[in-house]
Amino acid sequence: MNIPQSSFPRIIIIGGGFGGIALAKKLSKKEVQVVLLDRHNYHTFQPLLYQVSTGGLEPDSIAYPIRKVLQGYPNFYFRLAEVFQIHTEDRTVETNIGTIGYDYLVVATGSETNFFGNKGIEEKGMAMKTIPQSLNLRSLILENFEQALLTDDLHQRDALMNFVIVGGGPTGVELAGALAEIKKGILPKDYPDLDTRRAQINLVQGSDRILPAMSEVASHKAERFLEQLGVNVWKDIRVTDYDGQRVTTSTNTSFETATLIWAAGVQAVNIPGLNGKELLCRGNRLKVNRYHQVEGFEEIFAIGDVAQMETEAFPNGHPMMAQPAMQQGRNLGENLVRLLDDKPMKPFVYRDKGSMATVGRNKAVVDLPKIKFQGVFAWFVWMFVHLYFLIGFRNRLVVFINWVYNYVRFDREARLIIRPFKKQYRTSKSRN
Amino acid sequence: MNIPQSSFPRIIIIGGGFGGIALAKKLSKKEVQVVLLDRHNYHTFQPLLYQVSTGGLEPDSIAYPIRKVLQGYPNFYFRLAEVFQIHTEDRTVETNIGTIGYDYLVVATGSETNFFGNKGIEEKGMAMKTIPQSLNLRSLILENFEQALLTDDLHQRDALMNFVIVGGGPTGVELAGALAEIKKGILPKDYPDLDTRRAQINLVQGSDRILPAMSEVASHKAERFLEQLGVNVWKDIRVTDYDGQRVTTSTNTSFETATLIWAAGVQAVNIPGLNGKELLCRGNRLKVNRYHQVEGFEEIFAIGDVAQMETEAFPNGHPMMAQPAMQQGRNLGENLVRLLDDKPMKPFVYRDKGSMATVGRNKAVVDLPKIKFQGVFAWFVWMFVHLYFLIGFRNRLVVFINWVYNYVRFDREARLIIRPFKKQYRTSKSRN
Repeated sequence: MNIPQSSFPRIIIIGGGFGGIALAKKLSKKEVQVVLLDRHNYHTFQPLLYQVSTGGLEPDSIAYPIRKVLQGYPNFYFRLAEVFQIHTEDRTVETNIGTIGYDYLVVATGSETNFFGNKGIEEKGMAMKTIPQSLNLRSLILENFEQALLTDDLHQRDALMNFVIVGGGPTGVELAGALAEIKKGILPKDYPDLDTRRAQINLVQGSDRILPAMSEVASHKAERFLEQLGVNVWKDIRVTDYDGQRVTTSTNTSFETATLIWAAGVQAVNIPGLNGKELLCRGNRLKVNRYHQVEGFEEIFAIGDVAQMETEAFPNGHPMMAQPAMQQGRNLGENLVRLLDDKPMKPFVYRDKGSMATVGRNKAVVDLPKIKFQGVFAWFVWMFVHLYFLIGFRNRLVVFINWVYNYVRFDREARLIIRPFKKQYRTSKSRN
Repeated sequence: MNIPQSSFPRIIIIGGGFGGIALAKKLSKKEVQVVLLDRHNYHTFQPLLYQVSTGGLEPDSIAYPIRKVLQGYPNFYFRLAEVFQIHTEDRTVETNIGTIGYDYLVVATGSETNFFGNKGIEEKGMAMKTIPQSLNLRSLILENFEQALLTDDLHQRDALMNFVIVGGGPTGVELAGALAEIKKGILPKDYPDLDTRRAQINLVQGSDRILPAMSEVASHKAERFLEQLGVNVWKDIRVTDYDGQRVTTSTNTSFETATLIWAAGVQAVNIPGLNGKELLCRGNRLKVNRYHQVEGFEEIFAIGDVAQMETEAFPNGHPMMAQPAMQQGRNLGENLVRLLDDKPMKPFVYRDKGSMATVGRNKAVVDLPKIKFQGVFAWFVWMFVHLYFLIGFRNRLVVFINWVYNYVRFDREARLIIRPFKKQYRTSKSRN
């Protein structure tokens, strides 16, 4: 792996997400050697993936080169690598580019889509947790409309224009809102020769309200906003299977669709070597103590989605979102420095800054610890917060300009099939 | 294909490049039915592809949805389709989505990379004529540096950091300049643990000067600018083969490189059915008369790179560039309207507006019909002209902001491996 030996202790961070990057920043200019491993060379701003899928933003503006984050940090090494195995006995990690030893190991591998073992949905449905997945979805949506134009079979045409989003969390709600805006603002102009009013956007939620992690008023308002946009919101229905055409559910309702988007669950990404049964919590998370130490290890830490720190306020661990990951990364950074200075570590305390979701082009719901509000002002807050947390000045500027443009023009110009998804569009030439 | 019969004559345009789009615009609101076919759903602004390859621009900002160009044009139909065959006898074209008849047919299929039959170069070398190809090159360049970090074999490391660009036309010159800027401005910061000074950029030209289509002073200055940037310019050398590691040439010079970029030739993209031997000129172009009519047909036209109109000033046809294609598209649009009105068509007269190439971050060479100049002012002219011809206000704004940002910060932030190129980086997960 060509990483020099140093007199400083070596900290390996697996994953350049919100947690890993926050931690890395805290360790800059400290007396440590840091090796950051990720299987992408970029950090992904996941909260805006749904805008990539719906052509509102280009993928490059919500991705940021990890090497650029680390520019100028002495003793920092980034390696584009996939970690296969952790060997806790000899304190090494095994990757596709070789094996490397650590003094301290931080698992910040995040989460991936959880299909709960349903192979049909995993194979035929679409996930939206990475940029390539979001681009696949963008292509599929556009390919569906191109195909809908061609068929005389009304049944098939409806299925191609029918979207079923499973999961009423922020991802599902935001995606449903964006698709509804596309139906209203873009489809009639792009496809004047297609009966686009027949396009349907269905949001299916297993419990009795959408945005179940937010306040009741937020759920209620978000549902109303969605309905105003023409989204069909289905509650208390669990999707049980999908064969590429028909979605079956726990009730006698079913859907015919060419596009099922699965946003109904995530699970931690685990690396073999740690996940003895005793360590794994619900959703594959690793049990950590208040100092982020993985149970049974003093030198192995976990932060973010992959870590389950059980506290009184959060008996099942913190929400699998950007905020806890960033706060944990910063806390762990400080603690590692303390540990090396032989000072006692500080237990992590999560400061809930609230949560929010946007619905359509100018509405949002916001729950802050002391106040909850919904509507246009909430949408401004949503935009400000997302721009603030986006990494990189250029990305902020480009995203901001796209938003202004899309808002004023009722448009989304990144509706490009650059990465064809369906087989018939993936000719040999499409790779070239 | 689900295109309604109309009382207007049907004009089929194959290709949504500079020529096809210029033609379509001229036909809007005329008494014709227009069917535009393209195998991508977007128009590509090819002159800036090299900036996508080198991480300076996101691909989405130099692509533009074809459907958006045609928005609001009555009787216009776009279909995402690949044309396999033209049947001139019954006046139909056969595509992957069905067969359709035409009254008038316009071939505007453009050009593709010409490897002159060299299979080794075609298989192992990189082309840069489409957005997917440019993204492949972007990934390969970044993957090479990631790999160079890992190897202890100095010979191999040098090959990974050695770039051989074949062809000293505008594409080759602009790409070489951009790579040289990356070597200077980004590599030392991104790869502090790699001896990036050993990176080499070689531009290989078969004739005795680069930019052979431009003036001697432009060639001379461009070469000086490149040398100041540290690019090795090789003249009078023809590349004969490439096996993925070694580039052999017509002289005893050879190069060891993991990246050969072939920008040494283009050829017209032909569709079977027209290309009887008698029609094909050099580079597969179709011979057309002064009214763009393909020899032997009154109702079939060709414009742009695929058309060879032999005139006194251009005995081998016009240059295969954006300007002639756009002018021909406009002229043909007017002529088709005249033809339908039973008025005589006007012969095409090409107005040479000059040509230009940029070299590095703030130099360019410009040949206008009456004046030639080089340097920083030329670079401003180059930028202005490219922004002017880019389609779409949003694209212009985003490109402009990226240029200002890149210039001020000596940076190129789109250095993202979103579409892995080398096999070892294309895991099953990278599609997901």
